[in-house]
Amino acid sequence: MAFKIGLLGLGTVGTGTAQILLDPSGRNPLLEELEIYRIGVRNPEKTRPIQLPPGAVTSDLESIVTDPDVDIVVEVIGGLEPARELILKAIAHGKHVVTANKAVIARYSDEIFDAANDAGVYVLLEAAVGGGIPVIQPLKQALGVNRIRSVTGIVNGTTNYILTRMQTEKADFADVLAAAQKLGYAEADPTADVDGFDAADKIAILASLAFGGRIKLEDVYREGISQVSAADIAYADKLGFVIKLLAIANREMLTDDPTDRLRLRVHPTLVPQTHPLASINGVYNAILVEGDPIGQVMFFGPGAGAGPTASAVVSDILNIAAVLTQNSFLKTHSSKLHPLLTCTHQHYCKIAPIEELTTRFYARFLTKDRPGVIGKLGTSFGNHGVSIESIVQTGFQGELAEIVVVTHDVREGDFHQALDEIRTLDTVDSIPSLLRVL
Amino acid sequence: MAFKIGLLGLGTVGTGTAQILLDPSGRNPLLEELEIYRIGVRNPEKTRPIQLPPGAVTSDLESIVTDPDVDIVVEVIGGLEPARELILKAIAHGKHVVTANKAVIARYSDEIFDAANDAGVYVLLEAAVGGGIPVIQPLKQALGVNRIRSVTGIVNGTTNYILTRMQTEKADFADVLAAAQKLGYAEADPTADVDGFDAADKIAILASLAFGGRIKLEDVYREGISQVSAADIAYADKLGFVIKLLAIANREMLTDDPTDRLRLRVHPTLVPQTHPLASINGVYNAILVEGDPIGQVMFFGPGAGAGPTASAVVSDILNIAAVLTQNSFLKTHSSKLHPLLTCTHQHYCKIAPIEELTTRFYARFLTKDRPGVIGKLGTSFGNHGVSIESIVQTGFQGELAEIVVVTHDVREGDFHQALDEIRTLDTVDSIPSLLRVL
Repeated sequence: MAFKIGLLGLGTVGTGTAQILLDPSGRNPLLEELEIYRIGVRNPEKTRPIQLPPGAVTSDLESIVTDPDVDIVVEVIGGLEPARELILKAIAHGKHVVTANKAVIARYSDEIFDAANDAGVYVLLEAAVGGGIPVIQPLKQALGVNRIRSVTGIVNGTTNYILTRMQTEKADFADVLAAAQKLGYAEADPTADVDGFDAADKIAILASLAFGGRIKLEDVYREGISQVSAADIAYADKLGFVIKLLAIANREMLTDDPTDRLRLRVHPTLVPQTHPLASINGVYNAILVEGDPIGQVMFFGPGAGAGPTASAVVSDILNIAAVLTQNSFLKTHSSKLHPLLTCTHQHYCKIAPIEELTTRFYARFLTKDRPGVIGKLGTSFGNHGVSIESIVQTGFQGELAEIVVVTHDVREGDFHQALDEIRTLDTVDSIPSLLRVL
Repeated sequence: MAFKIGLLGLGTVGTGTAQILLDPSGRNPLLEELEIYRIGVRNPEKTRPIQLPPGAVTSDLESIVTDPDVDIVVEVIGGLEPARELILKAIAHGKHVVTANKAVIARYSDEIFDAANDAGVYVLLEAAVGGGIPVIQPLKQALGVNRIRSVTGIVNGTTNYILTRMQTEKADFADVLAAAQKLGYAEADPTADVDGFDAADKIAILASLAFGGRIKLEDVYREGISQVSAADIAYADKLGFVIKLLAIANREMLTDDPTDRLRLRVHPTLVPQTHPLASINGVYNAILVEGDPIGQVMFFGPGAGAGPTASAVVSDILNIAAVLTQNSFLKTHSSKLHPLLTCTHQHYCKIAPIEELTTRFYARFLTKDRPGVIGKLGTSFGNHGVSIESIVQTGFQGELAEIVVVTHDVREGDFHQALDEIRTLDTVDSIPSLLRVL
């Protein structure tokens, strides 16, 4: 029995996927059962670096998702449309779907999984988060026996590369971004990465799997890294921290109720240097999962790239093929889906607003160089119940004194009220940095 | 539909397993389908910290593995016998088996998997390696689409705890071992851990899965950590390394043939401080997998303990229940097993003898304090084609001069021939340390 694959897209990930499928020796023997049957591309005339099955390539993508002979559709074209539409049409035609498309899944998982469950097909997405790192499947399966407390990830390689270089070279954001763009580590329009949109898509997907409920993408609080300065990285280092763009989903744990509210957020974060995520550098990704009774487990690896992402795509294909092989009736008879490969939750997770987050803060102030400024800052924080861990005048920026404050755990709303009061002080010039501390 | 579980053993892992199964709220909903039906213990009268189903406890373990109502037998008694015999009897009676028993699997996987495949049942063992870390399943599934080049692990928490404390406290092995024994981190008889037997069991299991062939445990080269001294850790630190007990399985890669020979070994190793495994400290475990095209992925987490190990045990139970749920015929009809959950390889992997290993070495010599000693060492190494990276007189031990040598990559056999020659030099007193470098 061979399973026929319809591959949508032949960019870097599509090419990497084809390379694995066309060269199965030394890999899982089940790969021999997979056939690249049709390949949809924009330009069929283009010369490709790989030898493709003759006649497989077409520019008519819709003909692939409706082809009665195709068993599994692999969507690696990216972007919202026509990817979403092709996925839905493939499902409607009874195809199983493998996708690397975090943007589509984070926005349209409701309709996609509703359609898939109605049609009795699988939609797998290991490649959507963490590149080659197996994290989606462990969350669905091995870790699912735990009550998950938190998922904390470095899930965007571009921003981690930029922050790592800023740290090692003591360079500013704009300079490192420009260098990263030249090297191809950042897009010409870097918004999706540096403003945290990509990380928000990914934590929405991870949270949905970890906590077994649907997530509205707009519920993810999001800040990017463009405000992080070389000065902040240097102060963080002195205080024993590195700055990372973290994507965090955690249960509030205010009650014993395992369905209590979630906190979902993407923001630059001061991470203690001894924390497992602190040493994840460059384009690498890592996802740390905490649960009961497992404690902490972390998955680390290449977060992007043709080879790693293709590895994840093909592992999903393999999973579907394994289930189909196991029960050869499944292809023609309607049968129950494998419960650890499906996403069947219908309810939406309750999300706590960011104002109710409790966290430590790092803030950097520029003030006039007058006696009593630190006292005034301290008084304003005290007025709003914000307890200070340290407040240090670190030096001068021109005429202005620079003061760095680290708080104990405070309610985000209280902290911002204190800042509103501080902004009215005539001795305070500006607050150039405001970062949360893990 | 409920699946009935026969639990063999109610020690820390067994108790942890029962705690998860008896308290499914907030975990994967499929756990609601699992029932602890029978529990086999040595002493049924003993008071237990958990509330067990009335009448479930028995001291007659054989009656559990032969009970027609039991679907899944969970073996967490440990040790070779009667664990092996009970596993085989459970299989003969058509039970699926989940085990945490690395010693039994590393020695008897041939007969156990032959029996399981004949009987059409699953034998899963996620808990046998890496405690709670999902690594067995990713190797079988997500990573299986890659051509694996190497699996390198810190898989023994006791030795990693000892080496970490030796490093941070600049203490000697014997003192830290004694302290670890007092704290319960090392057994009264620490042989299995400190001499590398436990790690050898685990790398045999990992290698078998990663490279898709059977492994004879006696083919794993093994050295423990008792010869590692505080002095070596200090010199390694100066050279930019930490010392870890690594379990390594890698393909020789002398040819393009993906079934070329494997190198299997457990030994203390100088690991570059920048390597991902260098920062794994204390009782934590980590497994680094390298393959084509994925590159490097690493799994990190608690390598032992009731909660983490129970998480792995229950994840295996869940996997079996998922497959059984998916096809309700499977319980009564003979059906094909899920190909990614079984171990069906029959051939034995070809293993390269340790003499043919190519590696860098670190060696520490005590010599008489005479001019020309370093020249004599260098000449002897040169006579056997051993190329030296550095040779440094680091100080004195009493009357004797201490010299530390680090080689470039050499063939292990050549290096030992050079050492044999060096031992005949009348200026050389002894070679207290000999370690490999990653």
